[in-house]
Amino acid sequence: MNEFEFIASQLKPLAGSFAGALNLEDDAAILTPEKGQEFVVTTDALTAGIHFFATDPPRLIAQKCLRVNLSDIAAMGAAPYCYSLALMLPEQTSQGWLSEFCDGLRADQNDHNVHLSGGDTTSTNGPLSVAITMIGTVPAGKAVKRSTARIGDDIWVTGTIGDAAMGLQALKGALPTIDAAARHALVRRYHVPQPRNRIAPTLRHVATSAIDISDGLAADLGHICTASGVGAQVSASKIPVSDHVLSLLNTSAITFETILSGGDDYELMFTANPDKVKKINILSKDLNLKISKIGRLTADLEVGFINQDGRMLTFSSNGFRHF
Amino acid sequence: MNEFEFIASQLKPLAGSFAGALNLEDDAAILTPEKGQEFVVTTDALTAGIHFFATDPPRLIAQKCLRVNLSDIAAMGAAPYCYSLALMLPEQTSQGWLSEFCDGLRADQNDHNVHLSGGDTTSTNGPLSVAITMIGTVPAGKAVKRSTARIGDDIWVTGTIGDAAMGLQALKGALPTIDAAARHALVRRYHVPQPRNRIAPTLRHVATSAIDISDGLAADLGHICTASGVGAQVSASKIPVSDHVLSLLNTSAITFETILSGGDDYELMFTANPDKVKKINILSKDLNLKISKIGRLTADLEVGFINQDGRMLTFSSNGFRHF
Repeated sequence: MNEFEFIASQLKPLAGSFAGALNLEDDAAILTPEKGQEFVVTTDALTAGIHFFATDPPRLIAQKCLRVNLSDIAAMGAAPYCYSLALMLPEQTSQGWLSEFCDGLRADQNDHNVHLSGGDTTSTNGPLSVAITMIGTVPAGKAVKRSTARIGDDIWVTGTIGDAAMGLQALKGALPTIDAAARHALVRRYHVPQPRNRIAPTLRHVATSAIDISDGLAADLGHICTASGVGAQVSASKIPVSDHVLSLLNTSAITFETILSGGDDYELMFTANPDKVKKINILSKDLNLKISKIGRLTADLEVGFINQDGRMLTFSSNGFRHF
Repeated sequence: MNEFEFIASQLKPLAGSFAGALNLEDDAAILTPEKGQEFVVTTDALTAGIHFFATDPPRLIAQKCLRVNLSDIAAMGAAPYCYSLALMLPEQTSQGWLSEFCDGLRADQNDHNVHLSGGDTTSTNGPLSVAITMIGTVPAGKAVKRSTARIGDDIWVTGTIGDAAMGLQALKGALPTIDAAARHALVRRYHVPQPRNRIAPTLRHVATSAIDISDGLAADLGHICTASGVGAQVSASKIPVSDHVLSLLNTSAITFETILSGGDDYELMFTANPDKVKKINILSKDLNLKISKIGRLTADLEVGFINQDGRMLTFSSNGFRHF
């Protein structure tokens, strides 16, 4: 199967009803903005051996590549619109592999109402790489940025933190005592993040800033603080963790710092004025999604975590410091 | 230098005055459409060892990666607006290499009034890969597509055809008799294509369809014919070639088929109603750019080339057939 056959048989159906894709037969796709809307654009590149294992199921690789981009769109308070796919394939990539990869894209496209708009398929002498540029739409002026958090705002996170990082540790064999059910659940969180796009339309009305947690909770909170010129104080005990992670913490298999610095969760962290607490709790119930208040923004420019035993940890780009 | 330092020192200046890039500090860039405009989006991925040599000067690699995208934007009759850069870097990439690469981006950004809007920088265990998604703007409904050519339209091409393919052959050592000046000129065409963006604003008013010549003149004309449901007849003798390529043809170092099937020229091919001849000739003079009429679209669905000696060649996805 050459590039053109692959595009015709596997990729064109993914452009589907999106007229702007021009049936993937042109030099570029056309994006027609609706009145009062603007676009947001994000790119994430993933490479075998770095961001996933070359032997991971192709369906999961496809979904991870799409979902890390969907997560960025959610963090801007935007709705997914279309995406461009750059696929750099090793020569030996089989038709079956490509077909399963496209099945993964299709499943997530349907779940998130987003279409393939175009891209490029090339060969590589190296590992498989996938670069996706996703475009979302948002009412003009309403995108949620990192730089607009305010001192005194509450800090919130969705879901549970640390599962994906522990899933990666389990895959690497670093958690030998873990039971099979916990291992499965954590590895799944690593393989297929659950981007929080359902919350995005409301995020625009409650959040003063937002980010998706890809580098780790501490680092990503640092990104908000740096961009907004504020500091933060977080109660470590309020950071939501799953039962599996709690067990690992209780048996001292891992430290709390590894939860704070572990990436790949793709939960959303956002800040909001304290008068939004009630609205956010209702939202949490409506979406059946845990949303936890973990701390508050401060004038002091440090990002500090109050540990379970009352000690303070501060986080800088060099990692944690104990006081 | 880690990813964040590279972004701060080298990439942020490339986002420059483009407010939508949010200083590269957010999850996504914001594109605000001007009234009556729409966006076009294209992606090209290039990998060392496939699309360029790993030892090529980093400045030229950067320019090639930008220019193949600029060329797609031109082929749509659109103006460059911004681009997203996915950079997959081998571990051993030096600071000097990155700095020169960014110099190449900067030079072309200035020439084409386009800004970096965001992207992703990751490491790879394989060869360097660069995936760029470029966004252009065009008045709503005025993008030039491949699918709107009409029977009886003239076929036009800019510049000269075949130089880049011969430059690649020279680099591979396949043209041992070529002199140094010719070699230099042809290799340069391969290394740094000259995208024809200056013609794009006028293209919208004269062309019924357009494509940039990246797969080779014959294949790309085939793409227009397939998308538009027409055929084409081209006079091989009217296809513009440089003096260097003419010498190679005259000494039988290459065949005319290799000119027709060689890619990487990034000239524009477009179709226009015959009543546009005068306007196109004036445009050619105004832009100081050779624009040559090479044939006409036909109802017969084949793409045929009348050879210098009067014989007919037809081109299909399997290559040329002689009659």
